[in-house]
Amino acid sequence: MRNRQWLIADRPIGRPVAETDFCWAEGDARAPDAGEVLVRVTHLGFDPAQKGWMENVADYIEPTEIGDVMRADGVGEVVESRDPRFAAGDKVGGLLGWQDFATMAGDALTRIDGERHLTASLGILGLTGMTAYFGLKTIARPFPGDTVLVTGAAGSTGSTVGQIARLAGCRVIGIAGGPDKCQWLTETLGFDAAVDYKAGPVRRQIRALVPGGVDIVWDNVGGPVFDSVLPCIADGARIVICGAISAYSASALPPGPSHYMQLVFRRATMAGFIVWDYRDAFPAARARMAEWLETGQLRHAEDIAYGLEAAPATLKRLFDGRNRGKQILSLHGRPAT
Amino acid sequence: MRNRQWLIADRPIGRPVAETDFCWAEGDARAPDAGEVLVRVTHLGFDPAQKGWMENVADYIEPTEIGDVMRADGVGEVVESRDPRFAAGDKVGGLLGWQDFATMAGDALTRIDGERHLTASLGILGLTGMTAYFGLKTIARPFPGDTVLVTGAAGSTGSTVGQIARLAGCRVIGIAGGPDKCQWLTETLGFDAAVDYKAGPVRRQIRALVPGGVDIVWDNVGGPVFDSVLPCIADGARIVICGAISAYSASALPPGPSHYMQLVFRRATMAGFIVWDYRDAFPAARARMAEWLETGQLRHAEDIAYGLEAAPATLKRLFDGRNRGKQILSLHGRPAT
Repeated sequence: MRNRQWLIADRPIGRPVAETDFCWAEGDARAPDAGEVLVRVTHLGFDPAQKGWMENVADYIEPTEIGDVMRADGVGEVVESRDPRFAAGDKVGGLLGWQDFATMAGDALTRIDGERHLTASLGILGLTGMTAYFGLKTIARPFPGDTVLVTGAAGSTGSTVGQIARLAGCRVIGIAGGPDKCQWLTETLGFDAAVDYKAGPVRRQIRALVPGGVDIVWDNVGGPVFDSVLPCIADGARIVICGAISAYSASALPPGPSHYMQLVFRRATMAGFIVWDYRDAFPAARARMAEWLETGQLRHAEDIAYGLEAAPATLKRLFDGRNRGKQILSLHGRPAT
Repeated sequence: MRNRQWLIADRPIGRPVAETDFCWAEGDARAPDAGEVLVRVTHLGFDPAQKGWMENVADYIEPTEIGDVMRADGVGEVVESRDPRFAAGDKVGGLLGWQDFATMAGDALTRIDGERHLTASLGILGLTGMTAYFGLKTIARPFPGDTVLVTGAAGSTGSTVGQIARLAGCRVIGIAGGPDKCQWLTETLGFDAAVDYKAGPVRRQIRALVPGGVDIVWDNVGGPVFDSVLPCIADGARIVICGAISAYSASALPPGPSHYMQLVFRRATMAGFIVWDYRDAFPAARARMAEWLETGQLRHAEDIAYGLEAAPATLKRLFDGRNRGKQILSLHGRPAT
């Protein structure tokens, strides 16, 4: 079977991701060996961490090589299986990569139950949802009545964090860029308030909304927005460092948050985590989140692009702040017009 | 009785403390009203936080006014008491200020048992020691075999932190400026190793000593030294933000630690605290520390200056990194020559 692929051609260290960082290749899909499975990729998920994977900045995951198929989370359908746990037609997820067909060890695949959760498993029931769930559960520890502030709130992780925090009885405020995203947060996702960082000084807007201070900060963006938030924390605040997308394309490591001494004045804690550390607990978390989805307590926000050719441009959307919810690429569907 | 005082004359915001920030005044000591005590000040303790007190940067303590006696921790002897809990001759401690005599509410004084602990109560048995004790106990949580890295290790807090961490079964490395301080840490205080930040790149020195990464960082300095330390942390590291003396005289808030994303890669926690929050537990902690002192398991490092006139210059010693251990001013003693 003909297999089209995007290969890593360059490492975008210190600059934005460009389409020229990828190289288009076509060839034949490799038949599975014993223990392997051939999967037809149907949807790909996008995450800012993918830029780091191309750069080998983190050591929690295997390094990538120039010429590798671009690493990406994906879902698809088994075409041929030489792993007894899978059969043709099964829906599966894993790091399938930017390609039409992935030939992979069955060990690296997860079965997905039901068509309904196919793309959800790339977002709210996948690593994005697990990130929100375990960061809240283990670091933020939301308590009824707490005020939770989420930066990058219209992104996939941020929008999930805010919704789960609402389920925990918290008041949730999202920071996002532009009135459309802000309106979407409050009117569609049920956030209590939204702050448009493009509309005026962030700190003043937060102080007006939360004069008593914020109990939990979930930061996806880093940079000046995050620094503006720190002087608004309440005593005993928990600050979850989830990402710093504002810094991922900088040519030098940007300054850290200059207001970090607020941790002292406010007896606060700032912490990071790696979601893979909780993998043994993923199934239980996923079951709980699936129930919330099915009962309508949680909404799955997806931003869908179409066609494998568009993969590099779709990745760039994240860094331009254009996605609303989980950025997904459908390889086979076509947009309804 | 004639009372000499140093009053706050200016706020040194955005610049180093200068002698002209204080104004010398002489007058009569005020006789105590009901509930008050007149104390002859014998020793004063010095702390970087005093600069912040002059600037009203923090809100965990009452603001100061221009013309107030300079706020300072001190110890002395009761001259006259109108509080039934104290009698002439008692040794007491409290925020006595830069003056010969303090007339204060008895409620604001603590009795000190025994001449032996008189100056210790300004340092290792006072707020400095309590800071080390509760920061370690509640945030750092040392465990036998952990490697603990202390910045500003030759200061009063740093030298106490390192010694307590040794008692907890940890390997302790101190960072200090110059070979004399480093030698003092390892040969006198029992640190396992010392890093001279003036002798070469801090990160390279730490990596050579701790290739597996540091489990606990205790930071007193902030700035470039702290930022150099962050990429050397181990998985699950706890980072205690105790101070940032490198920033206290800057004209603008300096950049924060640019490597703070290491919190994510290393699943680490960074936190601050205010020692006064643990005041109910001070007596129990003080008793434990006093026993360690008496059994020689803990050494009290004091750096003593002489004469009330020298108070402003003595405060400056802290910011010039000249003190070794707790900086104290003795009002009545004379240096042995």
